[in-house]
Amino acid sequence: MKRIGVLTSGGDAPGMNAAIRAVVRTGCINDMEVYGIKRGFQGLISGDMERLDLRSVSDIIHRGGTMLFSARCPEFKEVAGIQKGVDSCREHGIEGIVVIGGDGSFRGARDLSLSGIPCIGVPGTIDNDIACCDYTIGFDTSMNTIMQMVDRVRDTTESHGRCSIVEVMGRKAGYLALNAGIAVGATAILVPEFDYDIEKDIIERMRRTQKTGKRHFIIMVAEGIGGVEELSRQVEKALGVESRAVILGHVQRGGTPTCRDRVVASQMGYRAVKLLLNGKDNRVVAMQHEQIIDFDIYEALSMKKTIDNELYSLAHEISI
Amino acid sequence: MKRIGVLTSGGDAPGMNAAIRAVVRTGCINDMEVYGIKRGFQGLISGDMERLDLRSVSDIIHRGGTMLFSARCPEFKEVAGIQKGVDSCREHGIEGIVVIGGDGSFRGARDLSLSGIPCIGVPGTIDNDIACCDYTIGFDTSMNTIMQMVDRVRDTTESHGRCSIVEVMGRKAGYLALNAGIAVGATAILVPEFDYDIEKDIIERMRRTQKTGKRHFIIMVAEGIGGVEELSRQVEKALGVESRAVILGHVQRGGTPTCRDRVVASQMGYRAVKLLLNGKDNRVVAMQHEQIIDFDIYEALSMKKTIDNELYSLAHEISI
Amino acid sequence: MKRIGVLTSGGDAPGMNAAIRAVVRTGCINDMEVYGIKRGFQGLISGDMERLDLRSVSDIIHRGGTMLFSARCPEFKEVAGIQKGVDSCREHGIEGIVVIGGDGSFRGARDLSLSGIPCIGVPGTIDNDIACCDYTIGFDTSMNTIMQMVDRVRDTTESHGRCSIVEVMGRKAGYLALNAGIAVGATAILVPEFDYDIEKDIIERMRRTQKTGKRHFIIMVAEGIGGVEELSRQVEKALGVESRAVILGHVQRGGTPTCRDRVVASQMGYRAVKLLLNGKDNRVVAMQHEQIIDFDIYEALSMKKTIDNELYSLAHEISI
Amino acid sequence: MKRIGVLTSGGDAPGMNAAIRAVVRTGCINDMEVYGIKRGFQGLISGDMERLDLRSVSDIIHRGGTMLFSARCPEFKEVAGIQKGVDSCREHGIEGIVVIGGDGSFRGARDLSLSGIPCIGVPGTIDNDIACCDYTIGFDTSMNTIMQMVDRVRDTTESHGRCSIVEVMGRKAGYLALNAGIAVGATAILVPEFDYDIEKDIIERMRRTQKTGKRHFIIMVAEGIGGVEELSRQVEKALGVESRAVILGHVQRGGTPTCRDRVVASQMGYRAVKLLLNGKDNRVVAMQHEQIIDFDIYEALSMKKTIDNELYSLAHEISI
Repeated sequence: MKRIGVLTSGGDAPGMNAAIRAVVRTGCINDMEVYGIKRGFQGLISGDMERLDLRSVSDIIHRGGTMLFSARCPEFKEVAGIQKGVDSCREHGIEGIVVIGGDGSFRGARDLSLSGIPCIGVPGTIDNDIACCDYTIGFDTSMNTIMQMVDRVRDTTESHGRCSIVEVMGRKAGYLALNAGIAVGATAILVPEFDYDIEKDIIERMRRTQKTGKRHFIIMVAEGIGGVEELSRQVEKALGVESRAVILGHVQRGGTPTCRDRVVASQMGYRAVKLLLNGKDNRVVAMQHEQIIDFDIYEALSMKKTIDNELYSLAHEISI
Repeated sequence: MKRIGVLTSGGDAPGMNAAIRAVVRTGCINDMEVYGIKRGFQGLISGDMERLDLRSVSDIIHRGGTMLFSARCPEFKEVAGIQKGVDSCREHGIEGIVVIGGDGSFRGARDLSLSGIPCIGVPGTIDNDIACCDYTIGFDTSMNTIMQMVDRVRDTTESHGRCSIVEVMGRKAGYLALNAGIAVGATAILVPEFDYDIEKDIIERMRRTQKTGKRHFIIMVAEGIGGVEELSRQVEKALGVESRAVILGHVQRGGTPTCRDRVVASQMGYRAVKLLLNGKDNRVVAMQHEQIIDFDIYEALSMKKTIDNELYSLAHEISI
Repeated sequence: MKRIGVLTSGGDAPGMNAAIRAVVRTGCINDMEVYGIKRGFQGLISGDMERLDLRSVSDIIHRGGTMLFSARCPEFKEVAGIQKGVDSCREHGIEGIVVIGGDGSFRGARDLSLSGIPCIGVPGTIDNDIACCDYTIGFDTSMNTIMQMVDRVRDTTESHGRCSIVEVMGRKAGYLALNAGIAVGATAILVPEFDYDIEKDIIERMRRTQKTGKRHFIIMVAEGIGGVEELSRQVEKALGVESRAVILGHVQRGGTPTCRDRVVASQMGYRAVKLLLNGKDNRVVAMQHEQIIDFDIYEALSMKKTIDNELYSLAHEISI
Repeated sequence: MKRIGVLTSGGDAPGMNAAIRAVVRTGCINDMEVYGIKRGFQGLISGDMERLDLRSVSDIIHRGGTMLFSARCPEFKEVAGIQKGVDSCREHGIEGIVVIGGDGSFRGARDLSLSGIPCIGVPGTIDNDIACCDYTIGFDTSMNTIMQMVDRVRDTTESHGRCSIVEVMGRKAGYLALNAGIAVGATAILVPEFDYDIEKDIIERMRRTQKTGKRHFIIMVAEGIGGVEELSRQVEKALGVESRAVILGHVQRGGTPTCRDRVVASQMGYRAVKLLLNGKDNRVVAMQHEQIIDFDIYEALSMKKTIDNELYSLAHEISI
């Protein structure tokens, strides 16, 4: 394999640049030419790519976002779109591709692999919602960004003796809400993975905590639950505590990546190229129990991910 | 004067603790007893206060929020409420009060002064909307918090080639939006102090900038303008650029204060106590042209504040 | 068990407060009385302790340092010192103790356990040098602090085309240097766990990298290697690149803990109390492969820890 | 004037990129060609420059360091060096130059102006040691970086009941030490502008503060004073308080600029080009009492700067 491509697809995540850097560097030192493909599969179809060398990826390891840009590409869900991708690879001599993104991007990678262009997926999403991975690139940064923002919200919440109901990203997954919720000492945490009852899990908890002398409250709500404005009104009505809904928004997606995100992204990008060099195809790099491993994409896409039950119990037990 | 009180009132602001610390320390070393009054004028009325000494304010200079808590107190807008405040002062032997807050709080301070309890106001609000001051406690921190959050938003905005329409606090004033907008290189900044035309000041500007090759955009909108969801739709429709509204919310009020906020708050708290020691009454401490000065509260409340015209022009000229 | 103590011993680490909070909260909700012992074993000997309740540990989860203070206690290495500790426990009715610290502190915990006071160790040290644990409380925060500081150093290093030789903490372990070194893209990383040759591993690497066009360099050196001033002179002489030694110092020990440190510390503190409740004794809580487990302290102290070989190779391969 | 140059010279400072951006943008929209000259006067002499357009300075406003690099240039202190600079300007058609840097750089600008190439200086140095300016680009960022680092040092200092003696940058000026010292609540601050006596100003102060119950101490020492290792020994000996010297080093020079540094740098860069456009020559842009003004370089270089006496007194009064 003499020429490979790398692209980022789907929602961007801090650490993607570190993964790109590792792919480019590992490719170059193994005597491959590496092409950066712009805007995900869209750039692949349109042939929007350029050669990257060792120095093209200097001074990007600490930058948020993705230097290759990202985009969703509906065309790539169709057979015709995949074929255009294959044709583009043939035309540009691209013999393999590292695809950095989430589940949707891995489906594209699998289809491209099936059509004869070996692909390796690298899990990059702040949501941490990829079943075969304990940890995805961007999760650690986003979790810390949320925590820092809620630490700020806490200051004003405490000054005024209020309740702040904070909605955080994560799509259908509660990892960001659960971890950041524990870290900020949230009185209650609502995630899609567990049933909840507003009266019992929020109002009652707050009431009990009030009795111990607490006057301000943070409630953490995952995006997959939502409804923070309405919840804020319910809390205010039930407890007479002034309540505010806070939706953290796109701030959660950006920022310089944490150490962990930079290191893991480097490991994963490195592993992806090694897999291509070893003739592997249709694999996704993953982290389980702190080890970098890899799975067949089919297999990976069919897995189910669970959330840590004990962590959830702990949150409920000590956040009072 | 042997015993004074200090309180924070209205919306909290980073740096209020530094001001409290300066008041307490300056009072103590000048042989006064200093009482911390809780939750603003509410705590004054109800007698919720405790004596603070040199060490009570240790390790708070770097903390956001206010250790004395804050609250709005409608009762204090009535003559009866003021009288309760006066009675409480007599009862507890409080001979003067430093009131840290905004214009609303200064009206309370003025009424209390008129009723025989000497008060000194210290300007604490992130909005920087106090006419007699170039600079209010909390403004610098909030400006930087906004900037840091929008720097994060920029990462994802750039990765996806989007337009982000960001709404920031400031009530009827545009200082936060203007300064943070310049700092993040916003393509357009809308503040209540200047008229604007969406077609000319946003759409046209973006179109012109697009021609120079720019693909992502930040638009900064002051709270006093609002309507970011609607604006987002307009931009998307007119330019075909995917747009997102981002409302930064209460995160802007919290966080460890910046160096400038800590230093200026220390200067202002210090000055406030010196004024009381010198027999002054009904004054508000202010900063103009980097000098700490003071004004009669009446006079201060009747002033009009303008926004820097040149700064606004500069923003429009270079943010392209 | 109706009354337990908690103490922090040895060098402080960010996240210790989160662990204390978890111990206190878990104790209280399981109907135990929890005493905070000040300044480690010193406070145990002198009986310097106070009862903590649910609210005593409010608003500390985000604070660096330790609210119980820490100290080294040479007296506790002697039999007489241990006996004083036991006597103090009897006197105050302390039936078990959670000891948060490093290997030295665990030796104290083991000796106390042997003398009849059940102890559970919780690993807290920024150095990550506890053999039975993949991860110790404070490591993640310190790693990120170092990274952020070196990101700043990088700005000025790049502006001036210099080489910065950065010494970071870690005592005899290279975990901080290795991880932070990868995260900042250091051209070379020296850790005590691996042999190195200055000519081959630094000078030659820099020369090779220079040829690719790189003009500024970061070299990461673990405390256990040291000698950064001398190394700086060697680099300057060999390559003619202006070089600067930077010793990061005690800044690395402080700061608000990261999300990971807060969550893991909460889990570990929680587990420690559960162990005491279950009648366990002389155990140390640990994290391996992301699971919270526990070991006999004897066993734990006799383990040897290795550094990730692959991570070290990766660093050398892609940081060029 | 149809073609101008811009360069950064001397020590780099956060915000220089914001100033470069303002110069380039203001030049371009006023129909000038703007050339970025690399590595200060060195690049001018060697003709190392390239044309910059509106988009060349996109996404740099938030970056530390300087995209044009910086260097000291001894050759430019000689008549022959200046002449080479003039020749290079003639050759490349450069009709005016904006020089961003400190006093040394302004001397070069003045010499170049005298030789027929109109120059405008823009004050960029973290030290804030330019006599005609209240405020120089980079000062605010550096002050905040120092403060944040010392806030971290404070955590560990407090946990262990120590004294930390912190040396900060500033060359012969004490602005950084004084402002950051107040912001971190330093028990004593030593700056070159004021005489001090170790026994009276440090030992005695600490002793007095100890009596109020304080157990940990931060002492802030300006670079122009130095000797922190020795001071640490003296404090330890006199008071029996474990003491540590901390030299913050080059971390202080880097990092993303604060809001204030970005805004003021934008204003100053903008003003510099306007001056050139209005036919001005040999001027330095300055900020006094929050106003952007300008001075003759000769005049500016002969001014003397004083440090705020009141601020120094305040520090001594309330930091106890």
